[in-house]
Amino acid sequence: MSLVVHKYGGSSVANAERILHVAKRIVAARDTGQQVVAVVSAMGDTTDELISLAYEVARQPDPRELDLLLSTGEVVSCTLVAMALRSLGYASISLTGAQAGIRTDTIHGRAQIAGVDAHRLKRELDEGKLVIVAGFQGTNDDMDVTTLGRGGSDTTAVAVAATLGATRCEVYTDVAGIYTADPRIVPDARKLDEVSYEEMLELASYGAKMHPRSIELAAVYNVPVYVASSFVEEPGTLIHGEAKTMEHRIKVTGIAHERGVAKVTVRGVRDQPGVAASLFEPLAAQGISVDTIVQNTGVEQLSDISFTVESRDLDKATELVQKSLGSLQAHLVTEDSLAKVSIVGAGMQNAPGYAARMFRALSDAGVNIDMITTSEIRITCIVHESAVEHSVQSLHRAFQLAQETSGSSH
Amino acid sequence: MSLVVHKYGGSSVANAERILHVAKRIVAARDTGQQVVAVVSAMGDTTDELISLAYEVARQPDPRELDLLLSTGEVVSCTLVAMALRSLGYASISLTGAQAGIRTDTIHGRAQIAGVDAHRLKRELDEGKLVIVAGFQGTNDDMDVTTLGRGGSDTTAVAVAATLGATRCEVYTDVAGIYTADPRIVPDARKLDEVSYEEMLELASYGAKMHPRSIELAAVYNVPVYVASSFVEEPGTLIHGEAKTMEHRIKVTGIAHERGVAKVTVRGVRDQPGVAASLFEPLAAQGISVDTIVQNTGVEQLSDISFTVESRDLDKATELVQKSLGSLQAHLVTEDSLAKVSIVGAGMQNAPGYAARMFRALSDAGVNIDMITTSEIRITCIVHESAVEHSVQSLHRAFQLAQETSGSSH
Repeated sequence: MSLVVHKYGGSSVANAERILHVAKRIVAARDTGQQVVAVVSAMGDTTDELISLAYEVARQPDPRELDLLLSTGEVVSCTLVAMALRSLGYASISLTGAQAGIRTDTIHGRAQIAGVDAHRLKRELDEGKLVIVAGFQGTNDDMDVTTLGRGGSDTTAVAVAATLGATRCEVYTDVAGIYTADPRIVPDARKLDEVSYEEMLELASYGAKMHPRSIELAAVYNVPVYVASSFVEEPGTLIHGEAKTMEHRIKVTGIAHERGVAKVTVRGVRDQPGVAASLFEPLAAQGISVDTIVQNTGVEQLSDISFTVESRDLDKATELVQKSLGSLQAHLVTEDSLAKVSIVGAGMQNAPGYAARMFRALSDAGVNIDMITTSEIRITCIVHESAVEHSVQSLHRAFQLAQETSGSSH
Repeated sequence: MSLVVHKYGGSSVANAERILHVAKRIVAARDTGQQVVAVVSAMGDTTDELISLAYEVARQPDPRELDLLLSTGEVVSCTLVAMALRSLGYASISLTGAQAGIRTDTIHGRAQIAGVDAHRLKRELDEGKLVIVAGFQGTNDDMDVTTLGRGGSDTTAVAVAATLGATRCEVYTDVAGIYTADPRIVPDARKLDEVSYEEMLELASYGAKMHPRSIELAAVYNVPVYVASSFVEEPGTLIHGEAKTMEHRIKVTGIAHERGVAKVTVRGVRDQPGVAASLFEPLAAQGISVDTIVQNTGVEQLSDISFTVESRDLDKATELVQKSLGSLQAHLVTEDSLAKVSIVGAGMQNAPGYAARMFRALSDAGVNIDMITTSEIRITCIVHESAVEHSVQSLHRAFQLAQETSGSSH
């Protein structure tokens, strides 16, 4: 019997009515002859409410306690789904992260899955049960509950699918799939039938917001991920690594964007070994994620180094860089309210002209480009945040993504 | 270092403000040089809300799922108390029932504690931490979460106190101790300084509502239990087995009462072996608790058997007895809206005249007595529910319990 893993987000289990609807979806999959494991998130705003409660009793809630507190949200929803399934006449059992054998490291709040001990999962499946697993959580070696941080439940679902050899992992959410651009910005954005893991990693910032970590895990274990809506009955998007996605490509798949970007520029750095390390090591130590980095060497061996961070990290980053500059004769300039706009498509690197087309489109739209970076399958421009919508719309039009024939992935 | 176990009920941890207050109480105990383990119930009405949610998704929620669902309530409150303690600068850790080593049988909804594996509890205490334990829950051998049913958190507290050899178990609730009668009925009811386990078992139906199972456990392991309010600073009542309680007794300690009693009478049962068994075995099998049983043998070897059950069990009990009567030539009479009124006091059995005084007081008050039963330390009359308040008030007056000199336990 083949096995499928479902994952339902918080909005899909927000109340009793939605939970019964989810139960019916699981039953429908079962009735096609499949074994089903469903991973669920906490109901609606439960997690936010629990966090508020924690901050009411402590200015800085202890991470270990916060994890145990937050883990209850997913336990509540998974037991309710299991009850609903039983009330429909189907054998079912809910498992906490601990019971499902989700083993993690000990970093509370953003634990990584170390492995899945599938002993209990397999036993329950062998007994013919529909198994509902609490997402977002696991336990460390001390039996303490950990939570997986952002994208946690998606990651649980992919890890369980990989461990059990599921045919695919189906992620049900409140959007219908992956689009060529954010439909709220580009009304004629088109839903993609399929997309490669690599493209999805670049597109992850809009549409079905799947966290890159779950996509990376899916890519490593080659688990096909199907993203669709639990609210409407229409086809979603399959994220997978099939060769045909790569070969039949017409180059640009979609336009990604991300707001809340800030830039730090260090001017007049003497170009000597170890300078970059002395700047970035303190940031890494504080958990500040540095994104785009650009360095230009100018006159007299003096360099300008610019990099971007999330806006919310700007103050801390500025403080840390200021400290590092103590020994360097250089000065600091920061800029906030920036955004990233990217064109994404497999194989773009080997096809000339895409970068030029992108810059021309932005120029025609009157958008000033602050920084440029590229990867294998992406060209990104940093622009002012106020220009995001206009940029995305212009690029979507310039690369004719609204038409199936032009931006299609097959 | 001596160890004390605290227990805080749902009203004591109903919101952030109350939780911070509880944290301060725990800290105060710590600052007197004691180790503290605190067992907490779920916040306010959490358990009822979770039960409602379960009945929204399933007509008959699965007991195993319901237990896992309900267990989250105590996990939430114990993490919040631990966070509050840390915010006050005290090392603290919360433990779920599983983490605290509370091992139970597998009867979901009303599991019994099989034992406490105190390994983790001791380790955390040895590290100098204040340990907060989720009450009302444990795990069975399959790592499935069970709940302990009524009186569960009190029972957790007493079991932990017994296992760790605590000097005493302090149960904090919204009433200030054990009274000579329900203060809502008898305004001049007096709070007792101390009471024996045996008396407490009989008095358990009012005042600080401690479930008999926790008192029984305390008696077996000789754990002194101190019941007091977490809302006001005044002395509570010590429940213990000290000899002086027994010896200096002036006989009646208090008046207990219980509403919601129903009576089933089987008339004209031929007195032959096995009749009682055939009536009561089916009730036991369905988990219906039979309380008072009275049998009178009358003319021609025909007996009347009467027994009481909780009102909510009356329909089911009637149905089961009706079935059992199939082979017996007897008929059934039921009566609802009854209540029990008892006088309680150690050593009453050996002091004549108390029963007579009780019946006289009720008679003078115009209360009709339906049934009478007695135990070592209690005389109980079944009366009509409408006569409860009047009966309790009359008995409280008749035995002069409002005066320290007359009803005192020392």
